[in-house]
Amino acid sequence: MNQKERVVIIGGGFGGLYAAKRLKHAPVEVTLIDRRNHHLFQPLLYQVATGELSPADIASPLRRLLKTQRNARVLLAEVTGFDVANQQVILRNGTVPYDTLIVAAGAGNHYFGNDHWQQWAPSLKTVEDATEIRRRIIAAFEAAEVASDPDTIRSWLTFVIVGGGPTGVEIAGSLAEIARETLKNEFRSINPSDARILLVQSRDRILPTYPPGLSEKAAQTLAKRGVEIVTGTRVSEVGPQDVTLSYGDEVEMVPARTVLWTAGVKASPLGQALADATGVSLDRGGRVEIEPDLTVSGHPEIFVIGDLASFAHQDGKPLPGVAQVAIQQGQHVAESIKTRERGHRLPDFRYRDKGNIAVIGRGAAVAEVGRFRFAGWLAWQLWAYIHLTYQLEIENRLLVLVQWLWNFITRSRSALLITDRQETGFTTPEIGDQRRRWIYDTGLWPRVE
Amino acid sequence: MNQKERVVIIGGGFGGLYAAKRLKHAPVEVTLIDRRNHHLFQPLLYQVATGELSPADIASPLRRLLKTQRNARVLLAEVTGFDVANQQVILRNGTVPYDTLIVAAGAGNHYFGNDHWQQWAPSLKTVEDATEIRRRIIAAFEAAEVASDPDTIRSWLTFVIVGGGPTGVEIAGSLAEIARETLKNEFRSINPSDARILLVQSRDRILPTYPPGLSEKAAQTLAKRGVEIVTGTRVSEVGPQDVTLSYGDEVEMVPARTVLWTAGVKASPLGQALADATGVSLDRGGRVEIEPDLTVSGHPEIFVIGDLASFAHQDGKPLPGVAQVAIQQGQHVAESIKTRERGHRLPDFRYRDKGNIAVIGRGAAVAEVGRFRFAGWLAWQLWAYIHLTYQLEIENRLLVLVQWLWNFITRSRSALLITDRQETGFTTPEIGDQRRRWIYDTGLWPRVE
Repeated sequence: MNQKERVVIIGGGFGGLYAAKRLKHAPVEVTLIDRRNHHLFQPLLYQVATGELSPADIASPLRRLLKTQRNARVLLAEVTGFDVANQQVILRNGTVPYDTLIVAAGAGNHYFGNDHWQQWAPSLKTVEDATEIRRRIIAAFEAAEVASDPDTIRSWLTFVIVGGGPTGVEIAGSLAEIARETLKNEFRSINPSDARILLVQSRDRILPTYPPGLSEKAAQTLAKRGVEIVTGTRVSEVGPQDVTLSYGDEVEMVPARTVLWTAGVKASPLGQALADATGVSLDRGGRVEIEPDLTVSGHPEIFVIGDLASFAHQDGKPLPGVAQVAIQQGQHVAESIKTRERGHRLPDFRYRDKGNIAVIGRGAAVAEVGRFRFAGWLAWQLWAYIHLTYQLEIENRLLVLVQWLWNFITRSRSALLITDRQETGFTTPEIGDQRRRWIYDTGLWPRVE
Repeated sequence: MNQKERVVIIGGGFGGLYAAKRLKHAPVEVTLIDRRNHHLFQPLLYQVATGELSPADIASPLRRLLKTQRNARVLLAEVTGFDVANQQVILRNGTVPYDTLIVAAGAGNHYFGNDHWQQWAPSLKTVEDATEIRRRIIAAFEAAEVASDPDTIRSWLTFVIVGGGPTGVEIAGSLAEIARETLKNEFRSINPSDARILLVQSRDRILPTYPPGLSEKAAQTLAKRGVEIVTGTRVSEVGPQDVTLSYGDEVEMVPARTVLWTAGVKASPLGQALADATGVSLDRGGRVEIEPDLTVSGHPEIFVIGDLASFAHQDGKPLPGVAQVAIQQGQHVAESIKTRERGHRLPDFRYRDKGNIAVIGRGAAVAEVGRFRFAGWLAWQLWAYIHLTYQLEIENRLLVLVQWLWNFITRSRSALLITDRQETGFTTPEIGDQRRRWIYDTGLWPRVE
């Protein structure tokens, strides 16, 4: 029988989705497996965490995105492993056979062996992470408003962001705006602009992947906006009410009720599963070390792309875990599959770096495009333009644009909501604790008498 | 000392919020207490549950709404009871003294003594309810797509809405649109328009509070759009996989994995707490039976308004639990407080019914305004106009309008997302079960071979 080649893609992120879309007219049967029903526009996720956008503004159902692609189907399921001998993907219950496999399962955050820190220092990967972080930020100001003891108030108004990469910088910048502008006049007992925002970076400068000049510019802008930057500093302990910072052998304990984690990245456990199945080696971050053609050594039928892949065949060090790498790899794999159809050997992947932009806050960003480096208003406009045009659905562009304009003009934020499962009885233990803790702090409400 | 009169308002819904705003220029100190940080525009909540709007589009932070009102402060806390002797509101930890108390704590849903049904038949009151219902609706179609056994597929594609009031009608109409239009071509194994949507009503007609003619019109429209209406029928049992319906002594068990509860309303437990504290009597729904001036008998300093109040001094039967009643009562109480300042006695409340509109779906609604009754396109436009203008923030109007226009033109929905705490490890037992259950159903994914 002339069965069409079955291409199974794991992960609906940038890599997997762009691979699927590029295969639109190929004579293959594409199956995109994800445990989420939506593609998430990660680069703007921090704006959900800081109440500027709603989740739906940056998330698009995978089925809708592939609705018109008749050779593609979406399977909402969780992949647990691989049976490479029989060419099957193993689901929690069931299997899916493949002729060609594209693994684009992405990465999560890395707590360097201290996973218990996560409950006190959430990281930002999913929509739930974003709404949880948003909840904590607002709840912290609310807790400070009702607290009576000055130390308690100070610890509620202290925010520690761990990690000085783009995400850390973006969150720190937004937090400064929330404290200094958005919440202005909204509280009666506290002044939100008293908030202390610490950006902790282990390396000697923030945005270490950027040219030193831009790091400097970013640091200056953040400082001007009231963010304290602590470089050359590690987090040695995270607790419910404080963070322990250590510079060299100096150690300081900072009382802080809100800690956000943007340091270290760890590849999806599917990387390990793939290593167990194929014997391929992983790098320190658990990423799969792939061949120049993006395949797994000895398995020309298995591709690994995106944050899960460690591609070190260009200038030695692995490519960064950014959207444009995943997109280019996804498209490359799709093209390889098409050409291979016609019997060609697989071409090597070459990454074309289109540049990098990190946003610092309203009207401020730093950009590196080819040999050009620039900062400020122009960089910010370029950032906004790129992040609008890369949205996959016109509707999302529209919604994001409307809210950006509105927020920019009014200096407000659309989505500063606390939502948890409290009322419906679904309180997560941790929310419960947090909520309870600050109710306890309350005591007699100050200033009522 | 010349202490200003302390007005404490419990609840940031329509009643409490409009009371607070109307007191803007009064020489009083207003404290608005809510356990949520936002006011929710309830009338559009069903659109969040059906993926048409995002939570933030219809929710506004209370602090922002009262930010410019210098005599008002917001306290995010949970009220547990009242100490009327010492004129104090008791919080879970702490107390707030008052001179005048306005209780507007609202109502929740009523399972008629079968609260355990809630896990299988969630109701729609909070943002969390809405996103949970949205999740279940989408997850049901996903589960049907991956299921192999025809009976399982059918039970996943059967949706039962309990309660034929406005909310039930709105949800049923939206569900029909989702199944017949929104999800068209998005699935490969199932046809979403095979979905069976049952609207179960215990009375002899849907929208029983409307004139029979409009109920008839609504029923016809829903039927045309593929909703099965079952009147004169009660739900006698709800389980994880089926609902038991009983008409008279006939009993039928309907396999259905998605059941939504819009029947019965039960007043907030604070009604009971108030009864314990003041000896005021409650009606069958647990609502506080108040005096013509909206106060609690024997307590001229305590007002009860909105869904929590049972006001039966107009044509005998209590006023319905709708936004316009709460708004008018909130404003009335504020005026009473102002005039009382000047030593007048409290005026009685009179409700001016401005009419009722229930929306059935795109371009279809039924309306009753004074002696006029109309249905269809015109009624729908009136509905849209009213629900836009009653939004408290311009921004919300803007966001809702943009999405309505977009959804209307494209027949799509902006926010069809599954979001739960699965990935972040916060799975609620019930989501876990549901998710697990359908993963188990999966088996070998059909049609892959």
